[in-house]
Amino acid sequence: MNAFKFEVIHQSKKSRARVGKIHTPHGIIETPNFVPVGTNATLKAVDSNILDDINLIFCNTYHLILQPGVDVIKQAGGLHTFMNRQRPIITDSGGFQVFSLIYGGVANELKSKGTKKHDTGVLKISEEGVLFRSYRDGSKILLTAESSISAQKALGADIIVSFDELPPYHMPANKLKHSLDRTHRWEKRSLDAHLQNRNNQALYAVIHGGLDLELRKKSCTFLSELPFDGYAIGGSLGKTREEMFELLRFVMPLVPGDKPNHLLGIGDLQSIPECVPLGIDTMDSSHPTRAARHGLLFTKQGQKRAVLSGHATTFRPIEDDCTCYTCQHYTLAYLCHLFKAHELTAFTLATIHNLHFMNNLMADYRRRILNDEI
Amino acid sequence: MNAFKFEVIHQSKKSRARVGKIHTPHGIIETPNFVPVGTNATLKAVDSNILDDINLIFCNTYHLILQPGVDVIKQAGGLHTFMNRQRPIITDSGGFQVFSLIYGGVANELKSKGTKKHDTGVLKISEEGVLFRSYRDGSKILLTAESSISAQKALGADIIVSFDELPPYHMPANKLKHSLDRTHRWEKRSLDAHLQNRNNQALYAVIHGGLDLELRKKSCTFLSELPFDGYAIGGSLGKTREEMFELLRFVMPLVPGDKPNHLLGIGDLQSIPECVPLGIDTMDSSHPTRAARHGLLFTKQGQKRAVLSGHATTFRPIEDDCTCYTCQHYTLAYLCHLFKAHELTAFTLATIHNLHFMNNLMADYRRRILNDEI
Repeated sequence: MNAFKFEVIHQSKKSRARVGKIHTPHGIIETPNFVPVGTNATLKAVDSNILDDINLIFCNTYHLILQPGVDVIKQAGGLHTFMNRQRPIITDSGGFQVFSLIYGGVANELKSKGTKKHDTGVLKISEEGVLFRSYRDGSKILLTAESSISAQKALGADIIVSFDELPPYHMPANKLKHSLDRTHRWEKRSLDAHLQNRNNQALYAVIHGGLDLELRKKSCTFLSELPFDGYAIGGSLGKTREEMFELLRFVMPLVPGDKPNHLLGIGDLQSIPECVPLGIDTMDSSHPTRAARHGLLFTKQGQKRAVLSGHATTFRPIEDDCTCYTCQHYTLAYLCHLFKAHELTAFTLATIHNLHFMNNLMADYRRRILNDEI
Repeated sequence: MNAFKFEVIHQSKKSRARVGKIHTPHGIIETPNFVPVGTNATLKAVDSNILDDINLIFCNTYHLILQPGVDVIKQAGGLHTFMNRQRPIITDSGGFQVFSLIYGGVANELKSKGTKKHDTGVLKISEEGVLFRSYRDGSKILLTAESSISAQKALGADIIVSFDELPPYHMPANKLKHSLDRTHRWEKRSLDAHLQNRNNQALYAVIHGGLDLELRKKSCTFLSELPFDGYAIGGSLGKTREEMFELLRFVMPLVPGDKPNHLLGIGDLQSIPECVPLGIDTMDSSHPTRAARHGLLFTKQGQKRAVLSGHATTFRPIEDDCTCYTCQHYTLAYLCHLFKAHELTAFTLATIHNLHFMNNLMADYRRRILNDEI
């Protein structure tokens, strides 16, 4: 029996937006939803139990392979037990981070015009996979479709992701085509490895093709025909938000509608209003938690800096009607003070608020979709 | 009516150790007890509400004067409201930190053999008080008995402390005598300022005299005759723990027994077993919280490093029978991982454990004193 099931509760009459439920062994993920990033098996600055209302969190296989190592987490009884979180978890394949080593993060990659960095730790890319050197202990690690799936089986997240190649934004068309073909072969191998031992997990494919619409279409067609449990949208999504929205407007109608989908690495406040009407079910981003640690607080009136002269004496919550732990217990004046005094509690309290804000924001989207307002 | 009251519940038959209760407007402090340091109106890495079982915390007036400023906290309705902690709080006079600017911290001061540092920010010491420059905005601040008490009235802690001079360890005998006399004049002025407006607060004197037993005796005699609500032991306590214990063995019998006493800045695991039998009621230290942030976990078998090769797979709590939040939810393996991954949650979880350990330790001391075992 597969504990994984997706139901579309309501398809908006106004757009492609839909409200759904993803059933997993660790509970239901209501969609559309935002997925915070807990790279190292913890959300940064908050422990696993503080935020009970978070539906799904995203952990990074690459980081967990290097520290504490997959074997440790397997011995612990899996990621849920290790981090003591009995709610749904999604892990990625590790590929994104390894390929990021070559070209730098998304921002650097766009700026670099495709030049590779030196001393990236990546030793060899072949049909087999990627050989790289651990920055922690210098050991060589071969990441392949099979080893990524095997690692993700050991981690035991509810949703796991196929191994793919991450071509940089500036890759020439012919190279991009070859990269896509290889990614498809890797994804098929990932699926084969997964099907040998479902382990009560769901496997998502990753749709690639960069900004080439024909390749995106090809990717959707190829992957749709394989029995993946869901579809993630990955690869380069363009230099600007507008480029991404245009791409998604093209791609989303080609993504199987009866399966859940996930937009990889996007979840900022500017993108969500455009992505939800396109039918995105889940989307992850480290933006709300990172913004929190930089003292950027989310409010219905936009982002608010914690440290601002007027806030030193604002003896009210960040938002008057916010029901989060931080707003129920502390004032903006106190948060402003904690940030100015460089106190770690500032990070915790701001993170709690921003994630609660995201939760409410997405609940509001679901409500509006149910009313066909979106 | 004064909400402040001290009762000795039991005087040990075996030593000077005693169990008592300090009644304050924000509840009862059971003694002997350990007092964690929350310098900037927060315990580091944990928010005010997580540790409900902490009886008393220590905030630093010097830091709060500089950030957010006394006026801000006064406007907030006082420290309790500002940091949303409805439990007892003690503040110091600010003098210790200002004088530390001159000679460095305790460790540096001992090493320096009394040489003053340059560019300390301290501009002038006079009979009036200390003029220093704020490291935050360069403004000049005059700290006097009256301004310290006034600041502490505005902060509104349950227990406040007289303004004193902190003579360095290496001060020559004749200078130490003059310093003590001035400190006594400052403390008397602090008391006068306090008595003009009790504000439902208790004022502790600070017994000085360095390592000179005659001066210590003189200080006890002088201060005992004044209507302070309690007596703190301050100033240089020696270079080694043994020197401190010897000094305390001399001083403690001279401290008024019907008032609560407090040992300033001492509360490490090595000192407590010696101090409790001498009749110390409360003692503060940043050691347990700082140790936690350095990955040193307190256990009944001594301090344990979170990061140790064997701990990567120790899928048990830090201590099997510990009832703290951290031990109830997470394993040592997980903590070890969080420290290795430089995750902020490591600091929070380790701090919660160490403070819970201190609480239990002191509860155990109280139990043993009640049984005349100590």
